[in-house]
Amino acid sequence: MFNKILIANRGEIALRVIRTCREMGIKTVAVYSTADKESLHVRFADEAVCIGPPASSQSYLNIPSLIAAAEITNADAIHPGYGFLSENAEFSRICAENGIKFIGASPEMINQMGDKATAKATMITAGVPVVPGSVGLLDSVEQGKKIANEIKYPVIIKATAGGGGRGMRIINGDDEFQKAWDDARTESKAAFGNDGMYLEKYVVEPRHIEIQLVGDQFGHVCHLSERDCSIQRRHQKLVEEAPSPFMTDDLRERMGAAAIAGASAIGYEGVGTIEFLVDANRDFYFMEMNTRIQVEHPVTEEIVNYDLIKEQIKVAAGIPISGKNYFPKMHAMECRINAEDPRNGFRPAPGRITTLHIPGGHGVRVDTHVYAGYQIPPNYDSMIAKLITVAQTREECIVKMKRALSEFVVEGVKTTIPFHLALMDSEDFKAGNFTTKFLETFDFSVV
Amino acid sequence: MFNKILIANRGEIALRVIRTCREMGIKTVAVYSTADKESLHVRFADEAVCIGPPASSQSYLNIPSLIAAAEITNADAIHPGYGFLSENAEFSRICAENGIKFIGASPEMINQMGDKATAKATMITAGVPVVPGSVGLLDSVEQGKKIANEIKYPVIIKATAGGGGRGMRIINGDDEFQKAWDDARTESKAAFGNDGMYLEKYVVEPRHIEIQLVGDQFGHVCHLSERDCSIQRRHQKLVEEAPSPFMTDDLRERMGAAAIAGASAIGYEGVGTIEFLVDANRDFYFMEMNTRIQVEHPVTEEIVNYDLIKEQIKVAAGIPISGKNYFPKMHAMECRINAEDPRNGFRPAPGRITTLHIPGGHGVRVDTHVYAGYQIPPNYDSMIAKLITVAQTREECIVKMKRALSEFVVEGVKTTIPFHLALMDSEDFKAGNFTTKFLETFDFSVV
Repeated sequence: MFNKILIANRGEIALRVIRTCREMGIKTVAVYSTADKESLHVRFADEAVCIGPPASSQSYLNIPSLIAAAEITNADAIHPGYGFLSENAEFSRICAENGIKFIGASPEMINQMGDKATAKATMITAGVPVVPGSVGLLDSVEQGKKIANEIKYPVIIKATAGGGGRGMRIINGDDEFQKAWDDARTESKAAFGNDGMYLEKYVVEPRHIEIQLVGDQFGHVCHLSERDCSIQRRHQKLVEEAPSPFMTDDLRERMGAAAIAGASAIGYEGVGTIEFLVDANRDFYFMEMNTRIQVEHPVTEEIVNYDLIKEQIKVAAGIPISGKNYFPKMHAMECRINAEDPRNGFRPAPGRITTLHIPGGHGVRVDTHVYAGYQIPPNYDSMIAKLITVAQTREECIVKMKRALSEFVVEGVKTTIPFHLALMDSEDFKAGNFTTKFLETFDFSVV
Repeated sequence: MFNKILIANRGEIALRVIRTCREMGIKTVAVYSTADKESLHVRFADEAVCIGPPASSQSYLNIPSLIAAAEITNADAIHPGYGFLSENAEFSRICAENGIKFIGASPEMINQMGDKATAKATMITAGVPVVPGSVGLLDSVEQGKKIANEIKYPVIIKATAGGGGRGMRIINGDDEFQKAWDDARTESKAAFGNDGMYLEKYVVEPRHIEIQLVGDQFGHVCHLSERDCSIQRRHQKLVEEAPSPFMTDDLRERMGAAAIAGASAIGYEGVGTIEFLVDANRDFYFMEMNTRIQVEHPVTEEIVNYDLIKEQIKVAAGIPISGKNYFPKMHAMECRINAEDPRNGFRPAPGRITTLHIPGGHGVRVDTHVYAGYQIPPNYDSMIAKLITVAQTREECIVKMKRALSEFVVEGVKTTIPFHLALMDSEDFKAGNFTTKFLETFDFSVV
């Protein structure tokens, strides 16, 4: 087992990793930018190293600083959390070259899954259903139009290096193609330094359902059932839950088997997630694979009673998994509490938290790095807490979430709490009747 | 079901009851003394009524004020929490006379169990093992010496109205009897206005193990297994856990059956606990019955996944229980976080909490009413939070507790956190090797 893990991240996920390390008896090194010097991850780690100024590019994305911090502190492994360098093949490679275990995927796995066109080709070979579309990257508008007419409009073009909704355009007919192509490529080039595009059939009103996977160094891969992440705003997840209210035993079996086949095809090691689009007929299509821990992992932890970060560290240390799959024993839901103003287009609302009361009691979990007096820096993402509830049934889980939200007091900054409270009162949400388009027609005047 | 419940209590238990009421769709009324006007139970209840000045006798123990508050707000039930009026037969009777449901035991049940000598006689009739001793109250020192010589010293004399260790004396021989008798009677008279005493064989180095019970209005009583509360200081519980590390399946079956027989003998309705002393041979003896919810109830909630306050309210509303017993599925532990200085004899340390960070993550529950900026009043008990951890095994539960304690930050007042941290490192504690005498020889210099 590792002696000391450096956590190349900040916020709640840094604290989350420290928690598990402490329970495992592993020492921890926090890194921090000057904007985060008062953060709890700095306080709770055994050691802390300042790695640069507030800008991510000069701190949490600065590979030489991170490697230097690991070497100075003699850390034998690095946990990248999510975001930042967690799916950066170069970072994974440099860690390995420096004899530091990267707690995540190998450069090869990241490359195979990070590039969406390559990932799709890999999945087709593994027999995983994919959305029909271009094989590999598009060469031209003409080729795109030809494929679109074969598989029928609407189609969507996506940046191969994309994410978070950037570099994507929905196209409804030949006449819209050229402009969408130009706009998406320009956006992708600016955001990711890469304008490679691919094309897919646009699945109308799908659900976003993902399968949590764990693979070890000995070729075993198991799944831990699904999470439903359909409640999104501009491709940003706001609420996640498990099991999915749309799930059936048959669909879980088919999706679980497909996800295991896909991960096995690249010899996947570590925790990872395969995201699928599921249509109204319960046909599902590979969307992408995340070769890292995800924000919403606690939902799975609560329904199967299993510490995913612990498992991730064990697998990285070469400990085999049991190989069996895990099925929901409870219902769990997570609301992302962001410092954003839901009445003003979810505009980020950094500032100082003056008063804080965190909900508690039976079936309530809160993962957060904030405290009364905490200054939310404007430099990073706006999530300040994850509120998770767990109960025997979905109905009880929602009731508990509503109760917990109603006693979650954050003063000094605006948060998404009023939005979540309104969502928990929505009849369609309560009935499990929603797709990824749900928020496009949600009545925000009730927030 | 009730429309509106008045909570005749304060602090974390008031908040705890509000949480469940909110999940059940029942409106709540908080009552508060002027010392508690900034409390969260006041903020989170649907209505709040000030019932008097800080002194408990003029506020939380003031029956006319409480009844008036219930009548003004049209509450149809009163939840007494623990402590204060929760085991007050007079209050239970007055509630009934005013057409308000007292969510607890009837005056008859409270009287049968509140008086220790009567309770013991009831248990003997029900076939529940009791510690050998006087039948009813002692008449004189001479009678006491006679019984002590029959059952062999050491013996203990106890105030029939006593509790919390007051009005008790251990006696090792005839020569000590007169002084112990005089001292205990004086103490009992002063504390409880009653100097009735009874005598028992003194069980050397026992464990304190209690059985959680629920009884409904139709004569059904079930048990929810045990809690081990042996870690006490001067009869004040500091740590509770379930299952007991000393428990066996056979002992649980015998204790569970005895507890059900005892509660059934008085037709018990509501949640309640029978406390037993368990000796090294796993013989057990009735100690007392608590006819109310207990501080440590979350330990049971976590191991059986069951909301005890919800069950208590349902039973009070006339809903029958299933009648089956519940057995531990997990291991849970609770540390009472008190504003006390463990390095100075646990002296109460009221004051203002300046900084607060509450632990979170998987398997961690915190029930608390405090927040950064909260002023702990000197008028009431010093408990500021209950920290509960739950895991598959006792070992993991302790590891998680240690981690959670280490990130529980309370600045501005002294707390019992350093004591709990030292306890979690104790080899005897970790081995489950402890009795109610454990803290008498605990090395407090490591705290």
